[in-house]
Amino acid sequence: MAKSDNGKKALALHKKLRGKIRIAPAMLVKNREELSLIYTPGVAAVSSYIASPSTSSGQAKRARDYTIKGRMIAVISDGSAVLGLGDIGPYGALPVMEGKAALFKSFAGVDAFPITLDTSSPRLQSASAQEQIDFIIETICAIAPAFGGINLEDFKAPHCFEIEERIKAWLSIPVMHDDQHGTAIAVLAALINAAKAVKKDLKKLKIVISGAGAAGTAIAKLLCKADVRDIIVLDSRGIISHDRKEPHKKELATLTNPRNVSGGLRDALLGADAFIGVSGPDVAQASDIKLMNTKAIVFAMANPVPEISAEEAKKGGALVIGTGRSDYPNQINNSLVFPGVFRGALDNNVGKITDEMKLQAAKNLAALVKKPTPEKIIPGPLEKGVTGAVAKAIK
Amino acid sequence: MAKSDNGKKALALHKKLRGKIRIAPAMLVKNREELSLIYTPGVAAVSSYIASPSTSSGQAKRARDYTIKGRMIAVISDGSAVLGLGDIGPYGALPVMEGKAALFKSFAGVDAFPITLDTSSPRLQSASAQEQIDFIIETICAIAPAFGGINLEDFKAPHCFEIEERIKAWLSIPVMHDDQHGTAIAVLAALINAAKAVKKDLKKLKIVISGAGAAGTAIAKLLCKADVRDIIVLDSRGIISHDRKEPHKKELATLTNPRNVSGGLRDALLGADAFIGVSGPDVAQASDIKLMNTKAIVFAMANPVPEISAEEAKKGGALVIGTGRSDYPNQINNSLVFPGVFRGALDNNVGKITDEMKLQAAKNLAALVKKPTPEKIIPGPLEKGVTGAVAKAIK
Repeated sequence: MAKSDNGKKALALHKKLRGKIRIAPAMLVKNREELSLIYTPGVAAVSSYIASPSTSSGQAKRARDYTIKGRMIAVISDGSAVLGLGDIGPYGALPVMEGKAALFKSFAGVDAFPITLDTSSPRLQSASAQEQIDFIIETICAIAPAFGGINLEDFKAPHCFEIEERIKAWLSIPVMHDDQHGTAIAVLAALINAAKAVKKDLKKLKIVISGAGAAGTAIAKLLCKADVRDIIVLDSRGIISHDRKEPHKKELATLTNPRNVSGGLRDALLGADAFIGVSGPDVAQASDIKLMNTKAIVFAMANPVPEISAEEAKKGGALVIGTGRSDYPNQINNSLVFPGVFRGALDNNVGKITDEMKLQAAKNLAALVKKPTPEKIIPGPLEKGVTGAVAKAIK
Repeated sequence: MAKSDNGKKALALHKKLRGKIRIAPAMLVKNREELSLIYTPGVAAVSSYIASPSTSSGQAKRARDYTIKGRMIAVISDGSAVLGLGDIGPYGALPVMEGKAALFKSFAGVDAFPITLDTSSPRLQSASAQEQIDFIIETICAIAPAFGGINLEDFKAPHCFEIEERIKAWLSIPVMHDDQHGTAIAVLAALINAAKAVKKDLKKLKIVISGAGAAGTAIAKLLCKADVRDIIVLDSRGIISHDRKEPHKKELATLTNPRNVSGGLRDALLGADAFIGVSGPDVAQASDIKLMNTKAIVFAMANPVPEISAEEAKKGGALVIGTGRSDYPNQINNSLVFPGVFRGALDNNVGKITDEMKLQAAKNLAALVKKPTPEKIIPGPLEKGVTGAVAKAIK
């Protein structure tokens, strides 16, 4: 299916649906007694019961058992880094967040609601970047009571790191920036199986990550936790080496690049086993892939246009090729991950998603492919068992 | 049904339901092509299309046609004035907001989602009252993009007036504080028919309103718009007369009390035709009602315990008696109003709810009772035609 065809069909479908989710009452009100139970006066007894503990955490605990808080995930974005489209704002971001909410229910039976943040008020327009970050954090924490978890989505780097960290510290419900951790879990799962398919040791792979945004940073960190030692990360200025000064790049430099390589993409790719693209369209060509080690692994995940086309990667000698797209084999997409993560968090009453849980989720996801081959390193998002495999790691 | 029975049943039902609403995908994803249309890559075409106008209003207009914005109402509270319970916070308020969301769908097919605001962050704890109001307003405006309308609920007075006014001025979607206007519309509808039932002229009624909070203030203002001239409003200090200094009481004083009466409830009730209680339990007795004119109208709307019981009002000589409760005749409740108001606003693309629309909604609601009698001045909330009658006034 040509890209424009897919786009036209998507527009027509969205116009027909006018929103990809609906609200359904858990119980229809058929008579006055039922009305008196779900609304006034009966609801007052429930409100009083929930509000009676003196602490906010005591109240939250009761709300978990008596309201949607026990089942509802917020999918929240400020629209600052949407798909490959960049900062398109809260209205443009809305169809993506709705799509995620629909997938949460379809894939994992998780109720989720999309919220997109308009930060364009006159006061915020003239505010500093830090004041804008503070506002986003305060807003999300303020609307948290109705939710049992928060899926952050499409916040730009480096703001996304501070936003996620501070919200996690503030709230006692699970908070996950999916562009970071959903992607990292999917990539690690794919890499575990790709290593098997090419008969190399995961921990000894030489990895090149193109992109030091939300996804690239989280992938690098999770690979470190999986004891992968030789990772080189590149941003728009080239290889991140030990002389970088910006806080989050400096942190990446201390975690990665043990051989202290410097230069550009070709310098990084020389002798590498795996290329992971999370930066944007068309950064590499067949001639670049030829610099890599034999049986090269190429994950070109930019969406919709990847860092290198599957055809071009193959021409360069890549043996295992994955993309983020649903119209190629080996789709490495966070839709494999986020529904299961929050299904598990809700079911097991998990307050924080830890690195150990993420590692286990990647392992469980990888294990669904019994005999990995270059053409099949990761389950498809519609395959049975995906959600359950991820969910059982979150406990 | 005794009150405690009702409360126990409500608690058990809420524990069983664990949330009174669910999210339902508008379309289940059955294959990869459908996934590519509602999520990536197809959704990118929709996001680009919505984001392409240069103005926020242009983007919002497109979002209305392609996302949930065209159908979704936010039910938002800070939990500062919940039912008769007072400031019970965001967790205690949640069952009420969920109940409203469930009724929106049950009564009017309107999709609505509950949000309760936690304003207890360390920064806000030490902030001034004005800074807290500013924060509530900014937060609600920030989360507005996903919504086609905002139903404010259970914000305490006088904060609620500034909050509603500034959000209405800021956003171009309909915003309504239901405790004010939903209640006022229901009361006016009931009063139109009560006047008919006692064969008095609505415009010449002498009205006493006990309570100058959200509901009392909005009722007084809407009655003025309906050309009712003789209104006396009381707050905890007694009759609001022309010497009051606080801004919103001063405004009420200029609109009401044309005879410049002063004193307490008994002074106000002397010769009055109608008593409207929106203040709290047990403020009046039979002996007070006896001071009123013949064929007195008593609306005692505090929930769950009214200003005066129906039995006591009758003993005092009241001919028409209404309450806010579902277990007495003549339930004057805003559940008659809010579903239809937002149904009409969404269907007719209404950006602001005007006074003319509110008056018409009250008239339409009253007209559903063909022959008003003291026992039947208002339709029941489950009666057919209620939502449609209100909705057709909002255009």
